[in-house]
This record gives sequence, structure tokens and C-alpha cells, in this order.
Amino acid sequence: MIRVLLVHDECLVRSVLADWLRREADLGVFHAPWRGASGRVRSVRPDVCAADLECADTYGIPPLGELGARVPGVPPPRLLVLASANRPGLLKGAVEAGALGYVDKEGAPERLVEGIRLVAEGKRFVDDSLGFGFLRAAEMPLTRRELSVLVLAAEGASVAEIAGSLHLSNGTVRNYMAAITRKTGARNRIDAIRISQGEGWL
Amino acid sequence: MIRVLLVHDECLVRSVLADWLRREADLGVFHAPWRGASGRVRSVRPDVCAADLECADTYGIPPLGELGARVPGVPPPRLLVLASANRPGLLKGAVEAGALGYVDKEGAPERLVEGIRLVAEGKRFVDDSLGFGFLRAAEMPLTRRELSVLVLAAEGASVAEIAGSLHLSNGTVRNYMAAITRKTGARNRIDAIRISQGEGWL
Repeated sequence: MIRVLLVHDECLVRSVLADWLRREADLGVFHAPWRGASGRVRSVRPDVCAADLECADTYGIPPLGELGARVPGVPPPRLLVLASANRPGLLKGAVEAGALGYVDKEGAPERLVEGIRLVAEGKRFVDDSLGFGFLRAAEMPLTRRELSVLVLAAEGASVAEIAGSLHLSNGTVRNYMAAITRKTGARNRIDAIRISQGEGWL
Repeated sequence: MIRVLLVHDECLVRSVLADWLRREADLGVFHAPWRGASGRVRSVRPDVCAADLECADTYGIPPLGELGARVPGVPPPRLLVLASANRPGLLKGAVEAGALGYVDKEGAPERLVEGIRLVAEGKRFVDDSLGFGFLRAAEMPLTRRELSVLVLAAEGASVAEIAGSLHLSNGTVRNYMAAITRKTGARNRIDAIRISQGEGWL
């Protein structure tokens, strides 16, 4: 029996997906929203977390790290993500969190079942159709420092506020913003935020 | 038999939802992504369109109007939407498109089946849990003109470009942006865009 915790923020969707997965005799299926998922990992002790990369509470990358919450004496669950090729930033986040499985939400649902079984054995599972997304994830143009500037700008912080938070001068923040605008091919700061959110960098 | 066209941009989710709905003997279920949905309305001629308000191609309101595409001699389908209370702008768009049914994605999936049956009879169906969302939709603070300015700003257009598109002076555009920032309780232009996208106004 493979214990699966399905993480998705829409109750309607995750209930129906869980019901559908329960038709497989070898799967024991539980489900939770992102908020509260780490608690459910500790109580359910799943073999596999199958997590949707969209998270209602944040633009961008959900708290994937929390799914690996360690319980003494119990191996952490293996991670499989439900992803889209057009949000490379989210794919990059999943790679960094050590996900073994990558199921394309544009594909057939049977792929999710295959993916769960392989990942439960500790094997990698990657939908080919996500290939272009991984390529774009590898080409992510911004440095970590530039990203932290842009995250604050996207939250509505002024240049002075960003400078204060990151212990930089106003001029340095302006230089970062100019570099970000150039590297993302944007017309201006607002356009750079729009492009970066669309790609899932933020 | 009620003919239902399920519109959702994730193939994996809409296939499983359609499968789940097909267990009801009185429902004939078809499905499509937003792109191409209007063509499917013409070929399937559904009694009810059950459409997710999230659309992969746009921030904000999906092209609900296209689902009402008229075929001579055939009544247009009735519209039911899958919605969240925390995106009042999307609820407002659905009301304006004449939707009869409003199913909360935070609720149990059985509500979707109930909703489809009532809407097919031409009756209204509204999940109580969406109430606060409708209240906020009614309190939408921006005028139509302010919204059109903000939509262009969110796309990365400069003040001069917005002025050119809307046949306004630069000063008038700046006045609109100041009013928008004040009315949304934002700290600045970027913050006003962030708040408005979060609410689903854009």
C-alpha cells in the first residue's frame, strides 16, 4: 500500500482527485490544502506527497520545504509535483526542494498514477512535455540578490524601503532595478514584475 | 439528459472532474480548455457551461461572454461558475456575464452536481460561502475609466503610452493613477496593481 498525501488548495478539486486515485487498490489517499499540509505530513506519514504547485496564499513558489518535515525514525515523504511548462520559476523551486516526480497538468490523469508508483519506489518521473519549462528554468536570468529586490518591489515597497530592508543604498537598489528591467526584457519596473510573475520567478 | 460543457484550463483536473460527473446518470459531460471553449459550445450545444473562473492566459476575468455564443435556433447555454470568495473581481465578472450558478471551490464537489441540475432548469444556485465575496464585489472602488488606466499600467505601459491609448493628457493619467492608489489603499502604483490583481479586479 502506498500512502499518498494530495496537496491542493481547492477543496472541490482535491476531493475529486483523491476519490479518483482511490480507485487504485494499491493507493491509500489523504488530502489537504497547503495551509496545514506540514501538520498532515506528520499525522498521515505519507510515502508520497503529490503537491499542486499553485498555492492560493502566495504568488509563486509554495512552501515545498514544509512537506519534507522530519519525524524522528520516519523517512520524509517523497515529493511529486503537479506542474505547468509555462511557469518555469515554480519548476525551479520544485527541483531545489528535491522533488522526484514532475507531472504535467496539461497531460492525462493516468500519468499521475504512474508517477506516484515510480516516485514511491524512489525513482524519478518526469513528463516529457515539461522539458521546455525545465530549459527556461535553467536560463533564469536574475541573481538571488536581484530576485530579493524584485520580490520587495512587487509587494509595493518603495526604493527607500527596499534599501532599508536589504541594507543597501538607494542608488544600489536603483541599479539593481535597472539590471532587472534590462535582463527580463521589460519596458519598466512594472513590466519586469509582470513578466517575472508570469514565469513564476516571484 | 443534461448536456454539460466543463471549462477548465488544466487537462488533468478537467478530465478527472468530467469522469466524476459522468457517474451521474442524468449528465452528459464534455470538456474543454478556455482556449477553444466557444467552438466547443457551438459543436456540443450544452444546456449548461460549468466554467472555472481561473484562466491560464490572463490575469483576471476569463472570456465568459464567449460561452454565450449564439447558434441560430438554439438557446444559449446557461452559465455556472466555479469561484472563490477571495477573488471578488472574478465574481463581479460572472454576475455581469449573467451566470445563474456560483459554486464555491472551497466546498464539497456534490454541490457542483446540485448546481448543474438547478441551473439546467433555469434556476439560480449560489453557495452561501461566497457571500462575502459578493459583498466585496459590490464595493469595488474603481470606476470603469480608472480600471482601464490600471489595466494598461499593469501591462507595463508608461504614463505617455496610457495617455496615447486612451486619448488623455499625461496629467490626467497621473491624476487617475493617484486616485486609484488612494482608493485601493495602496502605497504606490505597483502596490495598487498588486492589490487589484489579488482581488481579481484586473
